[in-house]
Amino acid sequence: MNAEIIAVGSELLLGQIANTNAQFLSQQLAALGINVYFHTVVGDNAGRLEQAVKTAQTRANLIIFTGGLGPTKDDLTKETISRLLGRRLVIDEEALREIEAYFVRTNRPMTENNKKQALVLEGSTVLKNEHGMAPGMALTIDGITYMLLPGPPKEMQPMFTKYGSAFLRRTFSLSERIESRVLRFFGIGESALETAIADLIDAQSNPTIAPLANDSEVTLRLTAKHRDEEEAKRLLDEVEAAILARVGRYCYGYNDETLFTKTLERLKERGWTIASAESLTGGLFLEQLTSIPGASQVAKGGVICYTNGVKEEVLGVPRLLLEAEGAVSEPCARLLAENVRTMCNADVGISFTGVAGPDPLEGHPPGTVYVGIAIRGRDTTVHRLTLSGTRDAIRVRTAKYGCFFLLEMLATGR
Amino acid sequence: MNAEIIAVGSELLLGQIANTNAQFLSQQLAALGINVYFHTVVGDNAGRLEQAVKTAQTRANLIIFTGGLGPTKDDLTKETISRLLGRRLVIDEEALREIEAYFVRTNRPMTENNKKQALVLEGSTVLKNEHGMAPGMALTIDGITYMLLPGPPKEMQPMFTKYGSAFLRRTFSLSERIESRVLRFFGIGESALETAIADLIDAQSNPTIAPLANDSEVTLRLTAKHRDEEEAKRLLDEVEAAILARVGRYCYGYNDETLFTKTLERLKERGWTIASAESLTGGLFLEQLTSIPGASQVAKGGVICYTNGVKEEVLGVPRLLLEAEGAVSEPCARLLAENVRTMCNADVGISFTGVAGPDPLEGHPPGTVYVGIAIRGRDTTVHRLTLSGTRDAIRVRTAKYGCFFLLEMLATGR
Repeated sequence: MNAEIIAVGSELLLGQIANTNAQFLSQQLAALGINVYFHTVVGDNAGRLEQAVKTAQTRANLIIFTGGLGPTKDDLTKETISRLLGRRLVIDEEALREIEAYFVRTNRPMTENNKKQALVLEGSTVLKNEHGMAPGMALTIDGITYMLLPGPPKEMQPMFTKYGSAFLRRTFSLSERIESRVLRFFGIGESALETAIADLIDAQSNPTIAPLANDSEVTLRLTAKHRDEEEAKRLLDEVEAAILARVGRYCYGYNDETLFTKTLERLKERGWTIASAESLTGGLFLEQLTSIPGASQVAKGGVICYTNGVKEEVLGVPRLLLEAEGAVSEPCARLLAENVRTMCNADVGISFTGVAGPDPLEGHPPGTVYVGIAIRGRDTTVHRLTLSGTRDAIRVRTAKYGCFFLLEMLATGR
Repeated sequence: MNAEIIAVGSELLLGQIANTNAQFLSQQLAALGINVYFHTVVGDNAGRLEQAVKTAQTRANLIIFTGGLGPTKDDLTKETISRLLGRRLVIDEEALREIEAYFVRTNRPMTENNKKQALVLEGSTVLKNEHGMAPGMALTIDGITYMLLPGPPKEMQPMFTKYGSAFLRRTFSLSERIESRVLRFFGIGESALETAIADLIDAQSNPTIAPLANDSEVTLRLTAKHRDEEEAKRLLDEVEAAILARVGRYCYGYNDETLFTKTLERLKERGWTIASAESLTGGLFLEQLTSIPGASQVAKGGVICYTNGVKEEVLGVPRLLLEAEGAVSEPCARLLAENVRTMCNADVGISFTGVAGPDPLEGHPPGTVYVGIAIRGRDTTVHRLTLSGTRDAIRVRTAKYGCFFLLEMLATGR
């Protein structure tokens, strides 16, 4: 069994966006044990799309399309496949009801072309779109399975993981499975991590160990091929234990966990609340924390003290301290964390002050950062960091170090 | 003249990386006036690569390859094309000298397989690699031009812009160029926008008008083919004016501008400062604004009032108001905007209060949002929104609506 992924959209051929949908689907298909032999990108042009489908039909028995399901004239994936396969397009009543409900809910007029989005290939399994209007669909004809997914990644990804993947498992009765586990590390570089476990990486064939650096974090993907889930789990557990015995200090979580979800979870377990005082991060720490559903039990709020005026007037850092020590200093970080904790009546106060760049500040180069953590009934701690990278990278890593330090403290004593 | 881009590499089919090379080259070719009709990705497999080349030969007269030029057994682009075209591979003496010099310079032993990197197709124009070892090459046979580029973007990009692009200009005697302009819209859906200008889209062939929806915004890309830059500019100006006459209200900027860069720019022009009170957005608005270098002239700071306790104690919203009207209400948004403005001594105070979801709040469904704007010396205004989508989408669109309303107000009166 082998697959081809066809992305439809002139914006890809003009280079406006990269084909990240093919990347996502390739990862997903690999995890299902399905080989991907070709990716094709074609524009919003019926003739060339038809040509691409005919080529794919000669070399794949699973063809997944992304894009071209929208309401406009440019969107012609369904119509082209309908013609090629000799299958009619019919209105899916459920999809139509949902599209109509969407327009009622948002109080906007529904234009006629939106109805087009409820059309599906007759006899296909409809894949529900929970993040947009155009439904996906899948069907098998003459030994070839066709799956049509929407183009926007925010719609396509959840549709595939929730419905598309299950359809493929059923259709292809997949038995040899690939079981993966991702270990997530922070505070250690990719080459240092790789050096520490080089012999393990070399020695392993099942499971394999694949490092990947991303967003100032490193992940290790452990992948076992198996027919038996228990056996795969045992293999993964063994290699994980060997890795953590060496670099466990830096491992904060698994799979889709993030430093922020982990921090929220740990705080929730203790029933603790948190408040932040954010200078260089401009609200990034609390924004990330509150992007997680259920954050309101934990995140009380905070102050974005981007200027010294706000540090002084809102957060009570004495002007004398700001003049003598500077805003980028250990005592300033300490007071910010303590005062925001008191002010918001939280169990934990966390502060970020430093230089994001591109210009130096108070004589400190970009990347000079202080993170303060004040916990009710404990001594306040301040960590000094020297980070490198762009303004964005420094801000993000600062907020992540906040989580990392906090998680360390939450792991020890009450 | 039309092109196909073939990326060679199993890492692409496994989803380890996205095909950003195709994106880069597509942009470059568009700027040269060369149409790209297909992207293909194929693994490190001679048979399937051969198949991909044969398909491309039937539909393109320029085929650009990326990847597969390295020293290992996996790298077989040159060998496959050599066999298909019946062209020998010969050592390029200059490339060989440079590879040898590289190993002397880095004091490492040169292994035999590194010589393979100096092999080029006989009779081809060699494209120098100034950031790695494998040279690129280009040649025309039977009316089809083949260009082979290395896979790593750090090597491929400078090679193409410095040498590849010049080769194509010479080979195709390019004079016709493509000039693009992107108009950015917010507050109007893709289909509503398209309906409003459907006749313009249909009538246009040069420039063309292409809509694209992304991150709750819609863009229109206007593309003119031309031999004369002034003439292209005039064509783009004309069609832009026709579009803006109908939907100009929703157009906030051009090309790479964002609602946040635009807001910062407009505030800076007036010499105004801003402070935010953010409930459901959790700091997202100010975080986005302060992610832009130079924000400190404009962004004073703010309060993340995620809980009612912070709204009351830090921002002075009376408990009675919170109890009678709720936090998700017009009077609460009004007071938050006014009080954060005063507290941070800013010219503008902006507030966001509402329901991000997934659960309802105070009886309001997710997507019920109030945005308050208090400007020194003007009446405070509050906008009520009914948004749909995920928690993330609602938060992001709320912050963007903040920019949108603020930009409207900044466009009118002093």
